[in-house]
Amino acid sequence: MQQLSGIDTTFLNIETNTCPMHVGGLVLLQPPPGQTPEQSFRAIFDLVESRLDHVPPMRRRLLMTPLDIDHPYWIEDPDFDLVHHIRRRALPSPGGQAELDALVCELAATRLDRNLPLWELHVVEGLEGGRIAVITKMHHAAIDGVSGAEILTTLLDLSPEPAVLPAPDKPWRPDDIPSLTRRLFTTAKSLSRRPGDSFRLIKSTMPVLASLGREAIERGKLILQGESTRSVIGLAPRTRFNRQITARRSYAHGGFPLATIKAIRKAFGVTLNDVVLAVCADALRAYLEERSELPRHSLVAGVPMSTRPEDQKGAGGNHVTFLRTALHTDEADPVARLQKISGDMAAAKEKMRALPASLMGDWAKVPSPALMARAARLYENFGIQSFHAPAFNVVISNVPGPPMPLYFAGLRVLANHPVSIPFHGVGFNITLMSYCDSIDYGLTADHDTVPDIGHFAELMRAAMERLSHAAAAA
Amino acid sequence: MQQLSGIDTTFLNIETNTCPMHVGGLVLLQPPPGQTPEQSFRAIFDLVESRLDHVPPMRRRLLMTPLDIDHPYWIEDPDFDLVHHIRRRALPSPGGQAELDALVCELAATRLDRNLPLWELHVVEGLEGGRIAVITKMHHAAIDGVSGAEILTTLLDLSPEPAVLPAPDKPWRPDDIPSLTRRLFTTAKSLSRRPGDSFRLIKSTMPVLASLGREAIERGKLILQGESTRSVIGLAPRTRFNRQITARRSYAHGGFPLATIKAIRKAFGVTLNDVVLAVCADALRAYLEERSELPRHSLVAGVPMSTRPEDQKGAGGNHVTFLRTALHTDEADPVARLQKISGDMAAAKEKMRALPASLMGDWAKVPSPALMARAARLYENFGIQSFHAPAFNVVISNVPGPPMPLYFAGLRVLANHPVSIPFHGVGFNITLMSYCDSIDYGLTADHDTVPDIGHFAELMRAAMERLSHAAAAA
Repeated sequence: MQQLSGIDTTFLNIETNTCPMHVGGLVLLQPPPGQTPEQSFRAIFDLVESRLDHVPPMRRRLLMTPLDIDHPYWIEDPDFDLVHHIRRRALPSPGGQAELDALVCELAATRLDRNLPLWELHVVEGLEGGRIAVITKMHHAAIDGVSGAEILTTLLDLSPEPAVLPAPDKPWRPDDIPSLTRRLFTTAKSLSRRPGDSFRLIKSTMPVLASLGREAIERGKLILQGESTRSVIGLAPRTRFNRQITARRSYAHGGFPLATIKAIRKAFGVTLNDVVLAVCADALRAYLEERSELPRHSLVAGVPMSTRPEDQKGAGGNHVTFLRTALHTDEADPVARLQKISGDMAAAKEKMRALPASLMGDWAKVPSPALMARAARLYENFGIQSFHAPAFNVVISNVPGPPMPLYFAGLRVLANHPVSIPFHGVGFNITLMSYCDSIDYGLTADHDTVPDIGHFAELMRAAMERLSHAAAAA
Repeated sequence: MQQLSGIDTTFLNIETNTCPMHVGGLVLLQPPPGQTPEQSFRAIFDLVESRLDHVPPMRRRLLMTPLDIDHPYWIEDPDFDLVHHIRRRALPSPGGQAELDALVCELAATRLDRNLPLWELHVVEGLEGGRIAVITKMHHAAIDGVSGAEILTTLLDLSPEPAVLPAPDKPWRPDDIPSLTRRLFTTAKSLSRRPGDSFRLIKSTMPVLASLGREAIERGKLILQGESTRSVIGLAPRTRFNRQITARRSYAHGGFPLATIKAIRKAFGVTLNDVVLAVCADALRAYLEERSELPRHSLVAGVPMSTRPEDQKGAGGNHVTFLRTALHTDEADPVARLQKISGDMAAAKEKMRALPASLMGDWAKVPSPALMARAARLYENFGIQSFHAPAFNVVISNVPGPPMPLYFAGLRVLANHPVSIPFHGVGFNITLMSYCDSIDYGLTADHDTVPDIGHFAELMRAAMERLSHAAAAA
C-alpha cells in the first residue's frame, strides 16, 4: 500500500461527471501486411499482458479512506483482470476522421471506474487504409505527462519484433483488501503523523463543511491554477473558452512536419516551442475574429511545466505546474507576434527556475479530500467561472516525444495524438507531442465551448503556412 | 429523494468487479428501408430523450450515506446528460453472431458508473442484413424483470410512427446534492426511525465488523438464495456451474417458434414453462454427459418468481424470490422427465402462494450495507462456493413478453434476448422471454464455467427437436 500525494489526491477530488480527470492518447498504427483486426487485437492484448510486471501503476487500484477524510492509498488489486482494461471496438460507418474523433470524445467524457486500476486501452478497427487506432485513458492521479511517457516507453518497441524484457526481481503479489476497521486505524495513524497545519485542518473538516463557501472556492481555484497567482502578468480577458463546461466533448487531431517548424525556428531565431505557441495564437485570434469575439487585450495561455526532480523519475505521480504567458493576440502581424511570444517565454522560464520544484506538492498536502470535493462541487453548481476573470484562456502543452519509429506489439506507430482535459473555466486544451519527423496534436474541448473544433484545426494549418511563407521570405 | 429498499440495497452491496449486478437485453432491430446507421442512432437518441419524463428511474442516481451505514437514496440527478447513457458502437469484423455475443459479454462484465443514473443503451451497427442491435444495461437495484418490462413498454411503440405521449403533470425538477453535514443528519434520523432489530444491528455494525466471519457469510448466502432455505427439496449436487466465478463472461442468444412449444404443451398436457424447463434440463444433461460430469442426483434449478403485489406496479424496485425445482436430469427419457418436472412445478407453485409476498423484502431490511459488502467480499476471497453444496445449479427464468410486433423509434423489433447475471456459486443463467411468435433466449455465464456456450445453444435446439418429434408421435 502506498498513500497518494496531495496533488494526486486533488486530481481525484476535483473530478465530476462533467469533468473526468483522465488523460489519453490516440495512437494510429499500421498492422503488418495480412494481419486481421482480430489478430492485431490479440497481439496488443498479449503484449500488454507480458509487460504488466514492468508498469506497476497498471495493476494498482484505489483504496479510499473512511469518510474520505485522508488521502487514499494505491493497493495491488487482488481482482485484477486485463479484460476490464483492453477493449476491442470498431468505428461506426463511414469510419472516417469524424467517427474516430467522435469515439475519442465519448471515451474522454466517460469516467474511469474507481473500482479498477485507473486505465483503459481501446483497440479500434474500421479505419481507412486498414489502420488500427489505440485510444488510451489513464487517470491524472496515476500519471502526469512525464511518467505517462515512461509507461509508453515500456509498452513500445524499437522494432517490429517485441523485445523480451527480463523478469522482475520478485513476482507481483496482490494485496489483501483491509477491513474497514483496519482502514480506520490506518487513517487515524496517518493523520496523527501529518504536519501540524494539515492535521488541524483535517480535524476541523466536519464543522468547516457546514459553513463552507467562498474560502473553499478560493482553495479550489488555487489548485486549478497552480503557479498562476504568483505571476506578474495581469488577468486574462474573458472569452468563450472560459466558462462552465458541459459533459460533452469535441476533439480534432492532426500534425505538422517537424522540418516546417524547424525552418521557421531558424529563420526567426526562436525555439520550437515559440513557433508552436505562435501557431496556436494565430489560430485563436482568427477563430475569435471570425465570431467578432476577439478581446482588446491579449489572450493568456497556461503552459504546463514539469517540476519533477530528475531523481524522482519512475516514481509516478504528478509534478506539474502552469506557466502563464501572453499570446499577443492583440498584435496583428504573425511574425511580430512570434517574436514577442519568444521574448516572454525566455524571461518566464528564467523566473520559474528560481522556484523550488516541490513547492506545489507541499502546498497541496493540506486540503482534505472531502473539503476539495465539496469545493469542486460548489464550483460546478454556481458556475462561478462564468463570472470572474480567468487566470488563463487556453492550455497549450508541448511535450517532447520519441524521435525514432516505434512499434506496438509489432504494429508500426504512425502518429500519437494527445487527448487532454478541459475543465471549468478553461474549456479548451491544445496538446502537441513530437514523434519522428512530425509534431502531432490533439485539440480537446468542451463541446459547447468549441463546437466546430475541426475548423480550428484548419485555422492552425493556415497559421503554420503563413509563418512558413514568412520564414521562406526572411 | 427516495430511500432504497433493503433488497435493492442488497443488489448494490453484493456487487463486485467479478459480479456486476446489472441486467440487460439484446434487442435486434430492422431499420426502415434507406435509413443509415447514423440516422437510426439519432432516431433512438431523440426518442429516448422525448420519453424521459415517463420513465423516472432513468434520471435518478444514487446518493450514498456517510460510511455506507444506512441504505442509499435515489436523487433526481442535477447533472443528468443523455450522452453518458446512449452510446453508438459498431461490431468488429466480420460482424457475425460471435462478435455480437462478444460485445454483449464485454458490456455484461463492465460495471455501471455509480456517479450516473444506473443504465446504458448501446446502439450497435455493422450486423448482417443491415440490422441494428440495441444492448441495454440497467442495474438490478433500479429494476426487476417486471418493472424492466414496464420501462420497455414506455420506450416501445405499437406502430412505426412513435406515439406522442402527454406531457407529465409537473415538469421534471433536479435535486440539489445535499452536503455531507445534511447527509449525516438525514442518516441519523432515518436510522432512529427504523424498527428495533434493524436499528440495534446497525448500531453494532462497527464492533461486529472486527470479528466478522461465518455469520456474515451465512447472511450473504441467505440473501443470494432467497426462499431456498425454506424448501423441502434436498441440496443440489455439485457441478461445474457452482463455483467461484471470474470477471469474464460467455453469452449466446437464440429463439424457438412459439408454435413448436405449444404443440409439445398440448401433446403432453403440461404448461409452456414446463416445456422450457424440460428443454433446458435435456441440454444440461447432454452437456454434462459429454464431459462425463453428470451427477447421480438430479440438478436443481432456481426459478425467479415475482412476488410484487399487483397494486405496486409502476413503483420500481425488486420483488423477486427463487423457487427451487428438480430438473430430473437423472431421468434418461425426455418425455418422462418433462412429466416429472410438470408435476413438481404444479406442487411448488401451490406452496409458494401461501407465503406473504413481501416476506423477503421485510427480511432484507435488516443487514446494513457495510455488513453486506463485507460478506460479499469474504465470499469472493475464500471462494466458499467451491466447497459447499449449492442450493441450486442453474437459474432458469422464463418471462412472458409482448405478443404483438413492437417498434423502437421507428425500427421494427425483430427479437429481444435477455442478458442476465451469473454469480458466485451459480455461474450459469438461462433467461427466456416471449415476443410475437417466438420465445427468445439469452444464455449468460461465467466464461470459465461454460466456455463453449454456443455449443450449449445447439444442445437446446436438439432438445427442442427431440420433444417436438415425441409430441408429433404422441
